[in-house]
Amino acid sequence: MAIQKPADYGFSHSVPEGDDKPRLVCGDCGWIHYVNPKIVVGSVVHHQGRVLLCRRAIEPRHGFWTLPAGFMEERETSEVGAAREAMEEACARIEIDALLAVYNIPRISQVQLIYRASLVDGQFGVGPESLEARLFAWDEIPWADLAFPTVHWALKHWFETRDAARIVPFGNPPGLDANTL
Amino acid sequence: MAIQKPADYGFSHSVPEGDDKPRLVCGDCGWIHYVNPKIVVGSVVHHQGRVLLCRRAIEPRHGFWTLPAGFMEERETSEVGAAREAMEEACARIEIDALLAVYNIPRISQVQLIYRASLVDGQFGVGPESLEARLFAWDEIPWADLAFPTVHWALKHWFETRDAARIVPFGNPPGLDANTL
Repeated sequence: MAIQKPADYGFSHSVPEGDDKPRLVCGDCGWIHYVNPKIVVGSVVHHQGRVLLCRRAIEPRHGFWTLPAGFMEERETSEVGAAREAMEEACARIEIDALLAVYNIPRISQVQLIYRASLVDGQFGVGPESLEARLFAWDEIPWADLAFPTVHWALKHWFETRDAARIVPFGNPPGLDANTL
Repeated sequence: MAIQKPADYGFSHSVPEGDDKPRLVCGDCGWIHYVNPKIVVGSVVHHQGRVLLCRRAIEPRHGFWTLPAGFMEERETSEVGAAREAMEEACARIEIDALLAVYNIPRISQVQLIYRASLVDGQFGVGPESLEARLFAWDEIPWADLAFPTVHWALKHWFETRDAARIVPFGNPPGLDANTL
């Protein structure tokens, strides 16, 4: 996805008629660019006790390990989006069985819906946005080389509930809320 | 929020460089209008066994009853957003205690995060987007005059788990998935 800077396109902030917050408005044509929080969908994918991670071939955090996850697209459900990301990033067919966590990162207006899933047939590969993909045993996980805090959180939350049939989804770890992220 | 039609502003669909899906691109300046799924945050707010509903003063579904809920804003968490909506629509201070449901409405690219909450001090009022607000006992709920299917779902899911200390969040009711909404 291209990174666009609204200021490069003639947008500036003003409060549209009937609104109560400043929005980005195009100085040429008046188009209002509403910025909404974005949804990231992903999963902790396990297979025979090991967890699937992908090493990022793209920025941010090129070269670091992450879960199969990415921005939800239009006209898909969150589960379909999580399965699509596993296919795109790790060529993996997954079966989702529970919502593991809902994380909020208000600093970047992001909500992450992370599911617990398993590999359908044990197969996976390396998608175009990944340098490699690998199943890690719990004591092999490259904690120092994980891409994002939420990857840490999701792995730990998965481990904590790995034998539970049903999950009350986790939120952000205590203390990691709107003010600290 | 103003309803804008991209076609009125010179946007048309084309596939940006490096992308694999058609997006809305401005014919004048090249700005790409990425459309992402939107997050609705809301809550089933209870007080002494009754549930708070608001009668809508705005379209769509003017005059019908709904939960306090609305679009999540930038730089807030989903819980803060749900509490903000309760204040805006029903002048109510709420305490959220559990995530009740995650509903997907892919037809309109919407994800709803619905919480279980209670009134902090028993007080509520009528916000500018509401015609009235009222606490309903379960056998008084105006089922025929609810604004949206998800309001039905959330009320039924709340009732089913009203005595549970912890909730495994509900999704769409069985059969009501991407293909039927």
